[in-house]
Amino acid sequence: MKPNPRRRFLQLAPIAALAGCAAKPDEKTEDEKLPSMVGAPIRAYGERSPHDKTKRLVPDLKRPQLGSTRTPLADTEGIITPAGLHFERHHAGVPDIDPAKHSLLIHGLVDRPLVFSMAELKRLPSESRIHFIECSGNSGGEWKAPGGPDAARSCGLASCSEWTGVSLKVLLDEAGLKKEGKWLLAEGADACKMFRSLPIEKCLADCFVAYAQNGEALRPEQGFPLRLMVPGYEGNVCVKWLRQIKVVDVPYQSREETSHYTDLLPDGTARQFSFVVDAKSIITSPSGGQKMNGAGFHEIRGLAWSGRGRIDRVDVSTDGGKTWAKATLQEPRLSMAFTRFRMPWQWDGQPVEIMSRAVDESGYVQPTREELVAARGVNSQYHYNGIKSWKIESDGSVKGA
Amino acid sequence: MKPNPRRRFLQLAPIAALAGCAAKPDEKTEDEKLPSMVGAPIRAYGERSPHDKTKRLVPDLKRPQLGSTRTPLADTEGIITPAGLHFERHHAGVPDIDPAKHSLLIHGLVDRPLVFSMAELKRLPSESRIHFIECSGNSGGEWKAPGGPDAARSCGLASCSEWTGVSLKVLLDEAGLKKEGKWLLAEGADACKMFRSLPIEKCLADCFVAYAQNGEALRPEQGFPLRLMVPGYEGNVCVKWLRQIKVVDVPYQSREETSHYTDLLPDGTARQFSFVVDAKSIITSPSGGQKMNGAGFHEIRGLAWSGRGRIDRVDVSTDGGKTWAKATLQEPRLSMAFTRFRMPWQWDGQPVEIMSRAVDESGYVQPTREELVAARGVNSQYHYNGIKSWKIESDGSVKGA
Repeated sequence: MKPNPRRRFLQLAPIAALAGCAAKPDEKTEDEKLPSMVGAPIRAYGERSPHDKTKRLVPDLKRPQLGSTRTPLADTEGIITPAGLHFERHHAGVPDIDPAKHSLLIHGLVDRPLVFSMAELKRLPSESRIHFIECSGNSGGEWKAPGGPDAARSCGLASCSEWTGVSLKVLLDEAGLKKEGKWLLAEGADACKMFRSLPIEKCLADCFVAYAQNGEALRPEQGFPLRLMVPGYEGNVCVKWLRQIKVVDVPYQSREETSHYTDLLPDGTARQFSFVVDAKSIITSPSGGQKMNGAGFHEIRGLAWSGRGRIDRVDVSTDGGKTWAKATLQEPRLSMAFTRFRMPWQWDGQPVEIMSRAVDESGYVQPTREELVAARGVNSQYHYNGIKSWKIESDGSVKGA
Repeated sequence: MKPNPRRRFLQLAPIAALAGCAAKPDEKTEDEKLPSMVGAPIRAYGERSPHDKTKRLVPDLKRPQLGSTRTPLADTEGIITPAGLHFERHHAGVPDIDPAKHSLLIHGLVDRPLVFSMAELKRLPSESRIHFIECSGNSGGEWKAPGGPDAARSCGLASCSEWTGVSLKVLLDEAGLKKEGKWLLAEGADACKMFRSLPIEKCLADCFVAYAQNGEALRPEQGFPLRLMVPGYEGNVCVKWLRQIKVVDVPYQSREETSHYTDLLPDGTARQFSFVVDAKSIITSPSGGQKMNGAGFHEIRGLAWSGRGRIDRVDVSTDGGKTWAKATLQEPRLSMAFTRFRMPWQWDGQPVEIMSRAVDESGYVQPTREELVAARGVNSQYHYNGIKSWKIESDGSVKGA
């Protein structure tokens, strides 16, 4: 086939043209080489293409049982994080649990201590919801020095899935909550018996024990066969390999609540039970470590989320924060879930700094790093949600700013 | 710990009690055996637990390159089908395509024939939407004889994912659609060059080429690296391994449009281009092949979908169709996506027939098998969407009715 002589690329095909897309007429369409042999047969579980090597960011650790991996946010699309790329964090490795032997105990300040097998839990009323989980340590390195070099290193301890399970209210109603029961301890079946204290109001409002993620059983790193889901709260309280829930009268100041997961303030005191994840966003494309394929059209893409509900707006600046424009938000925007934002952009090839700012339905506006540090100092490791910038050089390279 | 003496199970914990849940006080909670060793280390991609053996239904075929596998609907939760369990159907096996060498040609009745590499496609404006795909042959065996024995065999050629890609409108605008262009041929890069004709109005309305599924690249069986998404239309038109789109003036009556994918009617004529998937539903729990774990509380769960938009209502009957009750629908209900429905049910242990009936936002009501056969006869293999019943025996066994 010959190219159409009336081709007026710049005027009629502005996006591809301005994108520098090497979109070109094809001279050998009908004869193009195609497979002449039948391909691979059917199989029972569809694995990824060998050409797809997307992986979590795995740090080089002395003790890889006590570490974390990060979601490659720049390489994921939409709002669902595939289970295999969901970030992981554990304090004593991933236990191998036989679901036929696993059970959930509910005891403490209840009328009837109860033990549920997995089969019993699955028989109870179920619900499914799409929620993000963010480790409170996500972006923690940026308290002291901004400049996480890429989206995974800066922000990859956050992921989003459809979770299915049984509401804590159903389970606590079964057990009969006593009126003195004001907090709940949730404990995992890992070797360190990781446990956290949670206020009963939140537990009754919207928490659930999840046995499925994106339609299938949880992956081992995500708590197989059972984890707690605490929507909008820091990830550590979504206790994995959940084995018992004890209703108590006060928080128990567990190791995870004293040695970890408090926010040290400039005056030496610490914020404790800073559960709620504040609104945050990150541009995932273009983002650090990527190389812009020339000036012209680019779609700026990113993710925003808030523990306070829906994302109302994401502003994007392509001039270092001087001016801002509203990005398009992927619908439906779900409460306490990733929201994908997108904005068309013509890059003129000059050096530039780009950034995004999330606003949630409570009216909370994601702060600049300066505003955040002014309020909290730089001693904390947790709940960093300052605006993240990427610097684009004229050669197209993108770096953390 | 001793059981609470005030335990009044039946009165205070009706769900677990009536469910026959063997929920019982636990005598050795604090000393329960736990792992004393740290578990498995971090890893780059999270695979399933070895205890999770859920798989697609794989028939025993002489030529497994020309077959299909089915989603085990009774073993999936929520509305997202995990990519590894998404049904597959192919006519010449699964090609192994290197995305770096793959391209999409757009030609025919356009001003500028264009070729897009995968990288170029990913640079264009993107969108993500959650949609089901249903093979028009799903439930095809039930035209002649109802009674598919389980949810996978009866209805497992349907799945639902979040798909990300570029709208056909963007691509066709780039190429410059000529006014004589009324149909579009979409062709795959498999050995049989599977292709289908699609009306241009639908293509411009909401079709897109998808490179991602549930946040990551498509799986090979789902068209890696590129497939066409035609929301609400029969699955066969969602051409996989998409390599070219040709704009033409009339449908091309491809092999898939003559030897297949027409609906033979009682008078010997055939419905052709019966693209739209009519509203359909299936109870996935309890469903054929399962065994009820005793009388008492059970949650009836299932899936409903329609190619005409949102599911408005799902009615469930637990008395063989005499009376119906409204199920609860999982929110958000998305257009042309799976909708999960749930209904609490007390089974009295007597033999019973249960069934579901979907109603979509167009007002279309899923027909009984009798109504469907009266309208279309029993010669077709495609688009069977009659109400599906399960028969529960007093021993708890569940069978296709």
